[in-house]
Amino acid sequence: MQASTQEFLKSALEAYRHQIDSALDRFLPPESQRPKKLHQAMRYSVFSGLPGQGGKRLRPILTLGASELCAGKKEQALPAACAIELVHTYSLIHDDLPALDDDDFRRGKPSSHKAFGEATAILTGDALLTLAFEIISREMPEDLAGPLTLELARAAGSEGMIAGQAMDIEPDGKRNLDLLRYIHRHKTGSLIATSVRMGAIVARAPEKSLEKLSSFGENLGLAFQITDDLLDVKGKAAKLGKPVRRDQKQGKLTYPSVLGLERSKVEAENLIAKAVAELSYFGEKGEFLEALARSILKRQY
Amino acid sequence: MQASTQEFLKSALEAYRHQIDSALDRFLPPESQRPKKLHQAMRYSVFSGLPGQGGKRLRPILTLGASELCAGKKEQALPAACAIELVHTYSLIHDDLPALDDDDFRRGKPSSHKAFGEATAILTGDALLTLAFEIISREMPEDLAGPLTLELARAAGSEGMIAGQAMDIEPDGKRNLDLLRYIHRHKTGSLIATSVRMGAIVARAPEKSLEKLSSFGENLGLAFQITDDLLDVKGKAAKLGKPVRRDQKQGKLTYPSVLGLERSKVEAENLIAKAVAELSYFGEKGEFLEALARSILKRQY
Repeated sequence: MQASTQEFLKSALEAYRHQIDSALDRFLPPESQRPKKLHQAMRYSVFSGLPGQGGKRLRPILTLGASELCAGKKEQALPAACAIELVHTYSLIHDDLPALDDDDFRRGKPSSHKAFGEATAILTGDALLTLAFEIISREMPEDLAGPLTLELARAAGSEGMIAGQAMDIEPDGKRNLDLLRYIHRHKTGSLIATSVRMGAIVARAPEKSLEKLSSFGENLGLAFQITDDLLDVKGKAAKLGKPVRRDQKQGKLTYPSVLGLERSKVEAENLIAKAVAELSYFGEKGEFLEALARSILKRQY
Repeated sequence: MQASTQEFLKSALEAYRHQIDSALDRFLPPESQRPKKLHQAMRYSVFSGLPGQGGKRLRPILTLGASELCAGKKEQALPAACAIELVHTYSLIHDDLPALDDDDFRRGKPSSHKAFGEATAILTGDALLTLAFEIISREMPEDLAGPLTLELARAAGSEGMIAGQAMDIEPDGKRNLDLLRYIHRHKTGSLIATSVRMGAIVARAPEKSLEKLSSFGENLGLAFQITDDLLDVKGKAAKLGKPVRRDQKQGKLTYPSVLGLERSKVEAENLIAKAVAELSYFGEKGEFLEALARSILKRQY
């Protein structure tokens, strides 16, 4: 990536993150309001993270980027973008629970159940998931509230993200590449693809644009999870914000464990190449999403 | 209550339950579909219960009843009714978890985490909550999907039902009648009131009808929780479907513990009287909801 592209990407990401964090702050209930501990816990997880303490915000940035690509206005896409980030945050809180991955750290800070106790962590996840749908239905235009709710619920539900989590904790098939792809496509890919799609839906993009962006999002989502697996092995604890080699210790199915390091890297590169190819349909306007996609390989976003 | 009213109520409830159970069966993903264990666990909790093994279905029946009262068609209200039952079921599954109420039995059967393990129980609750919003957005007319999603999300969220659960496990104020009312109004009352309101919204009822039914639902919801507290003390395990005196053992704030048995009973009776008074606005058409409300006092619904 050229230096100028890197600069462009960096400043665009910062601007997006700033807008997303302000909107999230507006949408989350104040800590001063009952039940205070719950509202505190909701904000703790949404606003804890590495870059700028607010996490990378990859998913909502994809929503805003896709919406702008389809000539939508950024402000109109913000509620949908925030809803996705809340769903992502809820999934991390529940995933970290002792009964699931039992992770004590998340984004460099104690995970929700370590900071607030298990009961509050469970309720906090529930509350963030519910709030996501409240925001969409309250903030989006009447004719978009239904389609966006449906898009998000399908992507997050028992045949989307939760399917991936369920198969991750208790695989019901042979531990092979097919199963691994199923888990990754559902657990991570589904919500990332939907982040992109929701941006297009908000911008009322034509069917062809939605198709192109769906394919972009699906390939990007799987590539993202592979690089996550690779980071876990390579031990970049600082970038992950949690202890490394957790997957290995938990005997989890990962790309490196099934394909080896080198082939996993090639698979991620191929997926990003496929994702970027879909953007050619949009010409120069696809520049931001292309730069973002390529940065996934280096996890520099 | 007269014998004829009891007969009328009984057969009406049976008819409603049959419709609700069929619709739930249609809306829930098949057990044969991946992730099988998760889909099995979703159906296990939705279809386990005392009357006819499908639970009492009080909330969805209130939705259908309120919709019919406002001249809505029953079939149109079914998706909204089922969505509420799914939210109710998810809340029971999470409430029963070891970190929360630690209940091994629910509706006379092992609770979800006893039957499927804690990890699956957490994900099952998440999946049912998400499915509720999927059903509303997929099945309801475009202009109602938004308002119904908003109504349900608010009632179920961190300032509705979850607020009650959060304060129930960790009260942040003096353990007095005010706190108890807050917990009950949020934890149970909120979703019951919304069950009634959603029926009116589906039927596109005028503002005045919605107001009357909101007040009916709020009074009914609180009365319901008081009778639940009373059942816990009086030890009707068979009616509760779980061990009795759990509240007492857990040191929970209940109406009998704060007001005593007799005054709690009077409070429930007064609330039902208030609820029923709101129905007079609808004339004879209010007969079913009145009979249902009165039966709450005897828990014969």
